[in-house]
Amino acid sequence: MATMAALFVKTPKPSHSFPEIRKTHFITPLKLSVSLHPNKKTHQRTRISCGLIDPDGGKLVELFVEESERDHKKRQAMSMPRIKLSRIDLQWVHVLSEGWASPLKGFMRESEFLQTLHFNSLRLDDGSVVNMSVPIVLAVDDLQKNRIGESKAVALVDSGDNLVAILSNIEIYKHNKEERIARTWGTTAPGLPYVEEAIRTAGNWLIGGDLEVIEPIKYHDGLDRFRLSPAELREEFTRRNADSVFAFQLRNPVHNGHALLMTDTRRRLLEMGYKNPILLLHPLGGYTKADDVPLSWRMKQHEKVLEDGILDPETTVVSIFPSPMHYAGPTEVQWHAKARINAGANFYIVGRDPAGMGHPVEKRDLYDADHGKKVLHMAPGLERLNILPFKVAAYDKTQGKMAFFDPSRPQDFLFISGTKMRTLARNKENPPDGFMCPGGWKVLVEYYDSLVPTENGKVPEAVPA
Amino acid sequence: MATMAALFVKTPKPSHSFPEIRKTHFITPLKLSVSLHPNKKTHQRTRISCGLIDPDGGKLVELFVEESERDHKKRQAMSMPRIKLSRIDLQWVHVLSEGWASPLKGFMRESEFLQTLHFNSLRLDDGSVVNMSVPIVLAVDDLQKNRIGESKAVALVDSGDNLVAILSNIEIYKHNKEERIARTWGTTAPGLPYVEEAIRTAGNWLIGGDLEVIEPIKYHDGLDRFRLSPAELREEFTRRNADSVFAFQLRNPVHNGHALLMTDTRRRLLEMGYKNPILLLHPLGGYTKADDVPLSWRMKQHEKVLEDGILDPETTVVSIFPSPMHYAGPTEVQWHAKARINAGANFYIVGRDPAGMGHPVEKRDLYDADHGKKVLHMAPGLERLNILPFKVAAYDKTQGKMAFFDPSRPQDFLFISGTKMRTLARNKENPPDGFMCPGGWKVLVEYYDSLVPTENGKVPEAVPA
Repeated sequence: MATMAALFVKTPKPSHSFPEIRKTHFITPLKLSVSLHPNKKTHQRTRISCGLIDPDGGKLVELFVEESERDHKKRQAMSMPRIKLSRIDLQWVHVLSEGWASPLKGFMRESEFLQTLHFNSLRLDDGSVVNMSVPIVLAVDDLQKNRIGESKAVALVDSGDNLVAILSNIEIYKHNKEERIARTWGTTAPGLPYVEEAIRTAGNWLIGGDLEVIEPIKYHDGLDRFRLSPAELREEFTRRNADSVFAFQLRNPVHNGHALLMTDTRRRLLEMGYKNPILLLHPLGGYTKADDVPLSWRMKQHEKVLEDGILDPETTVVSIFPSPMHYAGPTEVQWHAKARINAGANFYIVGRDPAGMGHPVEKRDLYDADHGKKVLHMAPGLERLNILPFKVAAYDKTQGKMAFFDPSRPQDFLFISGTKMRTLARNKENPPDGFMCPGGWKVLVEYYDSLVPTENGKVPEAVPA
Repeated sequence: MATMAALFVKTPKPSHSFPEIRKTHFITPLKLSVSLHPNKKTHQRTRISCGLIDPDGGKLVELFVEESERDHKKRQAMSMPRIKLSRIDLQWVHVLSEGWASPLKGFMRESEFLQTLHFNSLRLDDGSVVNMSVPIVLAVDDLQKNRIGESKAVALVDSGDNLVAILSNIEIYKHNKEERIARTWGTTAPGLPYVEEAIRTAGNWLIGGDLEVIEPIKYHDGLDRFRLSPAELREEFTRRNADSVFAFQLRNPVHNGHALLMTDTRRRLLEMGYKNPILLLHPLGGYTKADDVPLSWRMKQHEKVLEDGILDPETTVVSIFPSPMHYAGPTEVQWHAKARINAGANFYIVGRDPAGMGHPVEKRDLYDADHGKKVLHMAPGLERLNILPFKVAAYDKTQGKMAFFDPSRPQDFLFISGTKMRTLARNKENPPDGFMCPGGWKVLVEYYDSLVPTENGKVPEAVPA
């Protein structure tokens, strides 16, 4: 078995906060050719491989300030009104800066916001249409708006007041939260995680403009080396001579059913005539709700699963998708798919109820489990992307392993839901052999063990892995 | 001045319930060449004029059963499960049957419903996109669904159990009301008129399929002769040698500011090089909320305004748009515009806050007044339509008449809002001279006078004109 090294790219600066993973096969820095020289994040539009699917709008947007311009920009920013970015705002700056949302060049102005809300897509100057289903917006309150006054640009700073980016040619417009929420989620019920975290208490104005990011966004959590930009992913796919890339978005631990699906997808692509399909295994790394398994634990779990050799490292790239999670079902799954086009994927695997969750108030799923898949097939701007519906895998008791469900013998299959899986791990019980590799399961059990129980029975605060 | 006759088309069967209007210039049956022979409503797709804008999807859909097939269809329907249509359902059957929603061929199936909710548009088989922003759906409840069982077709009947139409190749799918409301209105607040009237108490399933309407829908309210189908309107525009058609949607009394705008639009189109722009003055005739002026009174008012000669009958066609009103602002204005493409209009006048209303719960307008116009400019499938923004007209005190607002001398202008207008009419006060023709104003006063006051201060029930 090849080492896991082939799956990951290491940042030049080693992590200090993720020692467990540093001890594993994740790190073998010299095996990869992705160039991480200091000025790698300038506007290198020529880096796009001809063999991969074109980014939306034809070229990958990167919004980093050239190194030679940094000092100049920093001086300019000193005289600008400042906006402090929340954790989620910063994640969106990250997303925008690397071109996941290409051709967006910054936080949305009203025209883009309205097109996103009403049409889940943007019409470009040449009349072509790209998908854009979730608003990528920055909220400011009345006080901040007054402070901005007639200024044409603002400085965006992090929680430590460090300059992160400049937003210029700004446009400030009303943040109708109710309408935004209703049109994005299809409900205004209280308790939608992203809404409560990032919208309900946000300002009543939105500020759009052109974004220039001073330096690549880093989190210094030991996971930065896994956060490949679309340009870096495209380089990696090209280096591997990929003739197709199939993306698998996930925000949960990987079990052997997932692995089966991914392996089977590669087999199908080979049958279709592709010579070298590469899997982009792409866990979401931005904001997730409190009862999801945190990113650091998920990465540990993925590592164990990968070490187990179920996925072939030669044909798999594991990387972190920096977007925050909306849990907006059919609306959000379009964003998940569109962003992967920009990273070079021309196939997208879609599961049951993608980006879905329970209704926050009623006892039902928020979305129809099939709507995500259906909407993805019909979505404007995604016509170029091949949608691969998730085949249902379940535990086949006759084989003692995960297998595709065979409707002719339903009695042989055991469905282990996410809830069931979490309950087992929480109770330190084991799932049936073959459901998940033992190492991966152990990580899950450790995670739940690490949670500090709360007296009121609520979801305990997650602790970092 | 030409008589008003040129403005209207008469049905072969004279009305018995609208005597006031029968006495006026509305009726001069022989002046128009629109052929109203008995089988006019068959699938006469060749009727489309080459000179007018093409209908969405390339050909105007008409869903009437050929006369020779009627008896056969009626017999077939007798063995089908029956669904009783509400008043609003029947209005949608009317809308669909005449092709206002071309290329829709019946109540939406799930694929069309989802595309409408998420994208406000439908992708056709050839890859082209047409606008479709409001769901045109038929709800059934559990009992009806069970009764339909495995049947492939259902009979749609009116309140008197008379067969109206057949819906075949049916598809039944879930009616997620919350999601439908949130995505259509951008709010789920209680008190949205259409929601309370047609959705809240409707069934939990939607039934889509191919519609075949036995006979043209008539209301026998004396106004049927004003309800021209898109095909009839196209014939009329062709007869008049229109080289452009500009549509004006309204659901309120016409004042001289509207008239000024319409006259000015024609002037602008002539300046643009058109030789014969025709105005389609197109009051909405379907469901409206309780405090709107009812259709019959509005038609009386329009008649008086037209008699006054402010609009030129030679270049104006007055007709009733049969759609129910959603009051869904930027979402609905697209429907209003799209339907008029199908009727031959290539210019659409859009006002401030089109299809808007007050928020049902909060003290503010439900929609940003500019969003309708903006969304219309960006809407997929409406690229072919020329959007003409409404110029602001107000009462110019120096001239004693309605004039376009001149921002250099705001003190000279008086804005008379709809609320102000209604209050004046209700109190039998007069607006300033030149705001509305006296005959038209008198109708308004009569209407408010006819309302039976209620003790609780609520909006009184409207009485027919």
